[in-house]
Amino acid sequence: MKKLINSPGTVVDDALAGLAAAHPGLAVDRELGLVTRAVRPARRKVALVSGGGSGHEPLHVGFVGPGMLDAACPGEVFTSPSADRILAAALAVDNGAGVLFVVKNYTGDVLNFRLAAELAAEAGLRVATVLVDDDVAVTDPGAGAGRRGTGATVLVHKICGALAERGAALDEVRAVGEQVNAASRSFAIALTAATNPAVGRPGFDLAEDEIEVGVGIHGEPGRRRDRLRPAAELAATAVDAVLAEQHLAAGDQVICLVNGLGGTPLLELYVLCAAVADRLAGRGIALARTLVGNYVTSLDMAGFSLTLTRADPALLDLWDAPAETPALTRR
Amino acid sequence: MKKLINSPGTVVDDALAGLAAAHPGLAVDRELGLVTRAVRPARRKVALVSGGGSGHEPLHVGFVGPGMLDAACPGEVFTSPSADRILAAALAVDNGAGVLFVVKNYTGDVLNFRLAAELAAEAGLRVATVLVDDDVAVTDPGAGAGRRGTGATVLVHKICGALAERGAALDEVRAVGEQVNAASRSFAIALTAATNPAVGRPGFDLAEDEIEVGVGIHGEPGRRRDRLRPAAELAATAVDAVLAEQHLAAGDQVICLVNGLGGTPLLELYVLCAAVADRLAGRGIALARTLVGNYVTSLDMAGFSLTLTRADPALLDLWDAPAETPALTRR
Repeated sequence: MKKLINSPGTVVDDALAGLAAAHPGLAVDRELGLVTRAVRPARRKVALVSGGGSGHEPLHVGFVGPGMLDAACPGEVFTSPSADRILAAALAVDNGAGVLFVVKNYTGDVLNFRLAAELAAEAGLRVATVLVDDDVAVTDPGAGAGRRGTGATVLVHKICGALAERGAALDEVRAVGEQVNAASRSFAIALTAATNPAVGRPGFDLAEDEIEVGVGIHGEPGRRRDRLRPAAELAATAVDAVLAEQHLAAGDQVICLVNGLGGTPLLELYVLCAAVADRLAGRGIALARTLVGNYVTSLDMAGFSLTLTRADPALLDLWDAPAETPALTRR
Repeated sequence: MKKLINSPGTVVDDALAGLAAAHPGLAVDRELGLVTRAVRPARRKVALVSGGGSGHEPLHVGFVGPGMLDAACPGEVFTSPSADRILAAALAVDNGAGVLFVVKNYTGDVLNFRLAAELAAEAGLRVATVLVDDDVAVTDPGAGAGRRGTGATVLVHKICGALAERGAALDEVRAVGEQVNAASRSFAIALTAATNPAVGRPGFDLAEDEIEVGVGIHGEPGRRRDRLRPAAELAATAVDAVLAEQHLAAGDQVICLVNGLGGTPLLELYVLCAAVADRLAGRGIALARTLVGNYVTSLDMAGFSLTLTRADPALLDLWDAPAETPALTRR
């Protein structure tokens, strides 16, 4: 797979330079590997910090800005940022109201954010953490690690971000983040494997008629290999996998993320979205809000993930609140 | 290449169903193949209609909404919509202030929009047209057809849309569209070919170390085949190709679109963006505004197009004006 890069070792740093050039609303510290808002919030508010391996753009750097994150720490591709970088982010954006870490449930991220939280507490900061673990494909990848974190991260960023912007306290912002995570489940299907620039070849092999059902965003294996099927059948597989782990009844409303993994055309994501909507309608579940596009990617992987979040009026109000970031803007 | 579809013959209709399910702000007429705003503008204004073959999403359907288009007519993949559909769009959205057609310069689109304009005039509508022909790769693909239309279409949609929203007259909206087109030039490089679902195989063959320099958004051949090179060199090729056809001097400001063709990760587009910014800085040209992402795609093609638009304060003001569409929202 061909890469539009200068060299595998400089991809993340080069991309940060591009981020800085494109978005004057962001302050990019390439030395520290840290992205913050160029203009600090005018009022005291809970600061939101997230991060993780690169290769999932726009997650997390594209969600820094008013209404969402205060800072993002991108690690190298598919590699957690170090605790000292996360600590630097917390120190950079804390303004006295405390810092919320939004952490996807991967071993490296959990360890580094936990260490950063300890160091930040020693430095006198109040830190709380929301752990995102929405991916139902694998109940436990081993060693008690639990479910992986994926698409729900976008919803946690948006909804916690909106509540923080309204001046809520750290405990409240953490609580709504935990509510969103508990109300969210995701499932992904890959048509192709991603190619990490540092590796130079696809992370796994799929035949021309094969798909990986329940794939992770780093190419982790899913539940099974299967034959490529029509979009409506793949949508049904994903919807049913989510609903098997999340009680949704007729009359419920959901926020729905039909997420491209990086290499699938938007035209095809809309084909999938129609099938998802049909499958949910058959259960009496309505799409209250829907986001279709590449939000949590796995480099150039073809395929999709589906995230369904049970919505109530309070969550919808926060979801609809204004935001202004490179990847998501709300009027 | 695997496709996330139900069947090649239903891709566009299925995608329109998904568009309708995802975006209550759009009114989707699948029978007519027509996408309009669900809520009509409150005030009399020039109506903007665009369209063209599908496969370039979010263009055009993703740009329907307040501040941009009033209607989009998607044709089948890489196929112009028929004149009667375009006429139906014009009739649906005209509210007495006239209709502006934004047309990419391809033979089929030009013919069908021209015929639709004639039919609309017979029906008593005032219609004006902006022809977008920004792609410098091929000066004339034959028969006097002239340059192809590509990334500048997004800028024409946004800037004409903003002026129309402010109540400008049809002639004024057309004039600013022509100004934007004249101030814009684009150039694209493909790393892979796109696969049209109806064809089932890539539109052309590229070896693992080859790229197509100056490619069109339907896979039209460019200026030459070349070896894959570092992103900085590809950025320089594109910037220099644009500047050879567009006079920009030190001190000039541009609106810059670093556009993914569909299969390239956002991480890599930011790597390219950094190199573009560097190359322009070397000429004393500043990025006044920058958009990075998949806006005018060619299905699953890997690669990018670069669009540079010479900007003045009036254009920047219109570029920054509020908009609310599936693919582009401005606060």
